[in-house]
Amino acid sequence: MKEQYNHKYQVRVRTWEVDGQGIVHNSNYIRYFEVGRIEYMRNIGYEFKDDGGDLIKNNLKVVVVHNSLDYKSFARFDELLDIYTRISWIKESSLCFEHIIENNFNREIICTGKGILVNINKNTGKSESVPEILLNTILNFEKHVEILRK
Amino acid sequence: MKEQYNHKYQVRVRTWEVDGQGIVHNSNYIRYFEVGRIEYMRNIGYEFKDDGGDLIKNNLKVVVVHNSLDYKSFARFDELLDIYTRISWIKESSLCFEHIIENNFNREIICTGKGILVNINKNTGKSESVPEILLNTILNFEKHVEILRK
Amino acid sequence: MKEQYNHKYQVRVRTWEVDGQGIVHNSNYIRYFEVGRIEYMRNIGYEFKDDGGDLIKNNLKVVVVHNSLDYKSFARFDELLDIYTRISWIKESSLCFEHIIENNFNREIICTGKGILVNINKNTGKSESVPEILLNTILNFEKHVEILRK
Amino acid sequence: MKEQYNHKYQVRVRTWEVDGQGIVHNSNYIRYFEVGRIEYMRNIGYEFKDDGGDLIKNNLKVVVVHNSLDYKSFARFDELLDIYTRISWIKESSLCFEHIIENNFNREIICTGKGILVNINKNTGKSESVPEILLNTILNFEKHVEILRK
Repeated sequence: MKEQYNHKYQVRVRTWEVDGQGIVHNSNYIRYFEVGRIEYMRNIGYEFKDDGGDLIKNNLKVVVVHNSLDYKSFARFDELLDIYTRISWIKESSLCFEHIIENNFNREIICTGKGILVNINKNTGKSESVPEILLNTILNFEKHVEILRK
Repeated sequence: MKEQYNHKYQVRVRTWEVDGQGIVHNSNYIRYFEVGRIEYMRNIGYEFKDDGGDLIKNNLKVVVVHNSLDYKSFARFDELLDIYTRISWIKESSLCFEHIIENNFNREIICTGKGILVNINKNTGKSESVPEILLNTILNFEKHVEILRK
Repeated sequence: MKEQYNHKYQVRVRTWEVDGQGIVHNSNYIRYFEVGRIEYMRNIGYEFKDDGGDLIKNNLKVVVVHNSLDYKSFARFDELLDIYTRISWIKESSLCFEHIIENNFNREIICTGKGILVNINKNTGKSESVPEILLNTILNFEKHVEILRK
Repeated sequence: MKEQYNHKYQVRVRTWEVDGQGIVHNSNYIRYFEVGRIEYMRNIGYEFKDDGGDLIKNNLKVVVVHNSLDYKSFARFDELLDIYTRISWIKESSLCFEHIIENNFNREIICTGKGILVNINKNTGKSESVPEILLNTILNFEKHVEILRK
């Protein structure tokens, strides 16, 4: 499964991410997923604006419409985690990121999941097509992306 | 759909939960879901231990194995959110919580989702049956729970 | 010391606020302080705008320029904490909030601290006088506020 | 001032750390300070245990008793921040970390502050002397540390 992934980014678990059970709180994996997505996009050439709002230049404004996570094991304080990120499909105005989070030391899979993002027109607030230029950039980078559009 | 829910709890959106887009960051809804679950359990009679670890007395130790979230709209700073929580099914050692998060002012649905928890034996670390006493307490409280066990 | 405080607000410690030591992570007390300040301002009649930005209507835009915290004891998962908030002094364009955080069950003091906020003109970005109307509202509410202005 | 610092570590601002004003929420700088302290300790040879509890081996258990922060400017989404960390003094059982957080791009100072930690005996819960071995390691690493002990 990991062979499908072209992008990896590492984070270290910090004290405030661990709960009283001594394990990373389940909400924090969505944040690790997002780090994976941001660094993935940076890696294929996108820059980020400083308002934290319209995350991606070139008229892209993306909003998250779905997240799902399957917790396989636990991550603990100070561990290094590898976040694997790929885009698995692209529809007309949405795309799906998939993620694997792995313990860097023992290669145990900690969490898998995905997030679906929709491209929104900044002025109308309605969904609009993922731009051709981004589509092509992703197609050049991904081995196994499905294009689900007319 | 909301008629199926017997439990409601309110939170107010705080500044640090809102991102640069002026909306609640998508990771925080898992935290609201958890607030719903904790308060649901308190409401049916369970107390919580102070170590944040073994969340539920009576030998229950639960871990989250799955979360999924569908984002329907946005919540903003200082808004009051109603978290509706129910248990939709109980299997041998796992149970599923479902949630609706609604804007208290205009009744807009902001986010729906679910979390699956597994009951773990504290000593062996293996899954074990949800205790009869908890099962019965839930059956008394819930109108529409499915029991999926032998 | 607590007699000087006219405002109290309660929060419950949540799982993700507790670290692997089983105690509230030291960063979270700044968030509790802020909850105290927001609810204090609401209590004396201020409303909040939904952009999380210009927190206070009537042309007030406040930024935090200083925080300090003294940790006296520990708070643990699920404990109820009382946040006491007062304004201790007002200068030309700044004001100082002081806080005590107390365990609601055993009245142990967990943390004390203060935050200094400056009123900023939204257009120029420069500090400007705290408005008379706010000054008077605070003077009506506080017993022991010092006015340090010409 | 920066010349006194021998340790630097970099973080990138993430979406959930930014509030609705588009700037890093003031509570997060305590977390950046802590990252600085953890990486400082790792750099001088200390390892961390996986329970997030007794942070430092060799019988050290440290708790934070004080934090203070002066906010000089704003940090925004996706910016790289340099965290400078030094130990400024060591008393019998406590030590003081000082920090400067600087924008990596334009060298603007964003926040300065300090944290005081006390060494606790794990069994008695009382403060006890900072071990000689740690004292000597710090003296070898720091140029300007004050030793305030008998």
